[in-house]
Amino acid sequence: MASQPPPFPSNQSFVHLDSLSLNMLLSPDRLMPHLLAYLPTLGPSIYSVPGLFYKLPSPSSTTTTSSTAAESSTTTSPNSLSLKTCCSTNPSFPYLSVRMKTEFPSNSSFLPPLPGMHCVVSLFHSLTGVPLASLNGASLAYLRLSALSGLASDLLSLPSSTTLLIIGSCEYAHLVTAHRTARPSINRIIVYNPNFSKAQDFVCELCLREPESSTVIFDYAKDLDQVIGMADIVCCAAYRTTNVPIVKGKLLKAGAHLDLVGSLTYEMKECDDDVFSRGRAFVEEIAMNEAGKFVDFAGTLTELAGGKMQGRKTYDDVTLFKAVGSARFDLLVAQFAYESHIKLSNFALV
Amino acid sequence: MASQPPPFPSNQSFVHLDSLSLNMLLSPDRLMPHLLAYLPTLGPSIYSVPGLFYKLPSPSSTTTTSSTAAESSTTTSPNSLSLKTCCSTNPSFPYLSVRMKTEFPSNSSFLPPLPGMHCVVSLFHSLTGVPLASLNGASLAYLRLSALSGLASDLLSLPSSTTLLIIGSCEYAHLVTAHRTARPSINRIIVYNPNFSKAQDFVCELCLREPESSTVIFDYAKDLDQVIGMADIVCCAAYRTTNVPIVKGKLLKAGAHLDLVGSLTYEMKECDDDVFSRGRAFVEEIAMNEAGKFVDFAGTLTELAGGKMQGRKTYDDVTLFKAVGSARFDLLVAQFAYESHIKLSNFALV
Repeated sequence: MASQPPPFPSNQSFVHLDSLSLNMLLSPDRLMPHLLAYLPTLGPSIYSVPGLFYKLPSPSSTTTTSSTAAESSTTTSPNSLSLKTCCSTNPSFPYLSVRMKTEFPSNSSFLPPLPGMHCVVSLFHSLTGVPLASLNGASLAYLRLSALSGLASDLLSLPSSTTLLIIGSCEYAHLVTAHRTARPSINRIIVYNPNFSKAQDFVCELCLREPESSTVIFDYAKDLDQVIGMADIVCCAAYRTTNVPIVKGKLLKAGAHLDLVGSLTYEMKECDDDVFSRGRAFVEEIAMNEAGKFVDFAGTLTELAGGKMQGRKTYDDVTLFKAVGSARFDLLVAQFAYESHIKLSNFALV
Repeated sequence: MASQPPPFPSNQSFVHLDSLSLNMLLSPDRLMPHLLAYLPTLGPSIYSVPGLFYKLPSPSSTTTTSSTAAESSTTTSPNSLSLKTCCSTNPSFPYLSVRMKTEFPSNSSFLPPLPGMHCVVSLFHSLTGVPLASLNGASLAYLRLSALSGLASDLLSLPSSTTLLIIGSCEYAHLVTAHRTARPSINRIIVYNPNFSKAQDFVCELCLREPESSTVIFDYAKDLDQVIGMADIVCCAAYRTTNVPIVKGKLLKAGAHLDLVGSLTYEMKECDDDVFSRGRAFVEEIAMNEAGKFVDFAGTLTELAGGKMQGRKTYDDVTLFKAVGSARFDLLVAQFAYESHIKLSNFALV
């Protein structure tokens, strides 16, 4: 889809793609082939420019009228706004995105509670500056994460994989779909969550979505260490809150694929170092200025998708994929959502 | 309207306000009283944080794959993206805006030509970070400019004003409406444009919009200096492209009001210094770091609206208003558009 030049922007009106639209347009089975095809060719043409991070004043400083209100409250308020711009001027991919993310940790104390993080992505035509769309950034990021996770599974996990273990549950239905898209052979899905009732709820939700003809078995576990050795694919979508690793590498089955999508920083590996000694690890993207730190990683997903790096070398290798929430790949996903929407709109007009 | 706290954002879905919606919501007769009431009280609680300005690479540098593409092309490309953030955490005005403006000077060479400047404003709830709306920034800026221009006319021009001279024409119908809202006594409108046919077209357009019962006379002029002395209000909406001033101060009628809205920088005054010696000059807003330069200005529109400064002192004073395109006031206008939209939507649901 990206190989066709986008419609000349004067013919299109600005659109807003909300969570519902994005979930319809970006299902893993559509987004994964798109990313596989275009990450290697278009990924490198996307560059990001230095972003901005503002501490926002808390409500108590409302009487401040000077233009230095932001500065004076930086030490007290945990609220923030960050802006990140990515751009490609490749004629077959002429897009620019501005990601606006707000973080308000105390939102959970509202009744009803509000999410602590919100995000909007604005999309522009990068060769004319014409605004094209705004997109729900939280949904966009989650769908991108699911598709990258599924793509890594497709490139790294054993083709014979049958058992998927999900650590974390909650709102990760798309992650399950992505891994099942990569490995249709999956016939058992186990959910683990330290909060047992959340695991139960998630299993119920997955069962309800399943067609009657399905023979997939859904299960939940009380003890992670007991079930981890059963899984061909371990998807860790839990946020690591302490220094204790969630996944113990020595418990993984030979040939297992470990997918780390919960903590989007390089430092938080969610697993111990035993994993790295047992096989091959790949990362979504390596930040230029931090590349030196990541000797443990064999390469990036882009290199893997482009065939520049070999993934698994032996049947017994433990493979690992670490997601880091790259803003650059948001642009690739936003473009796909936008062009899919335009195609659908034009189709509806015929 | 701003005195009521905005609706709790979890109850509202994100909206996009396009040019058509903004033109309906922000007519000068609605926006001018809003600005008059809230500029003095809410204006000072809005602060802006340091923005960003990027030179964007031109299409020819598309093969650049490094993350320094933006920097390497700064000397060759005239295309740019600028980001400007404004915020208020006043509980009765809890809004944050991010203005994203692109400038592509060569857009005029496309067939059909595209505007060289585009702008989107994203609006957030500043106490929760919840995204509320995206707005067409070009329309927002133009409607703000018209309303501020009309408000200044209301505060500075002679109440007995009958003749309005518009310099520049083209797409300035809202400016005419704003001045007529301020001074319903206006019964003659003269249009001047160096391109005579543009003046004719604009007069035709104004006549077509006029109700049949109207007794207002519309006219166009070939020689500016000949008609300038006839006008009680001179609205200069032309961009000054040379060092030659457009308006000669000595030709203005005693008691005239001069409205400068064409060149949105302090340096480009569009008129000669004779104007300043004949009366009182006010500016939309004075940038803190440049305040020292503007000894010619008596004060700001906010001071004038709040009664902190006296406007006209004598019947014969020539008064002047200089617009500078303040991003801070965008927030006041975006808030009014958003709250008006929410009110209308709720009304429609009843």
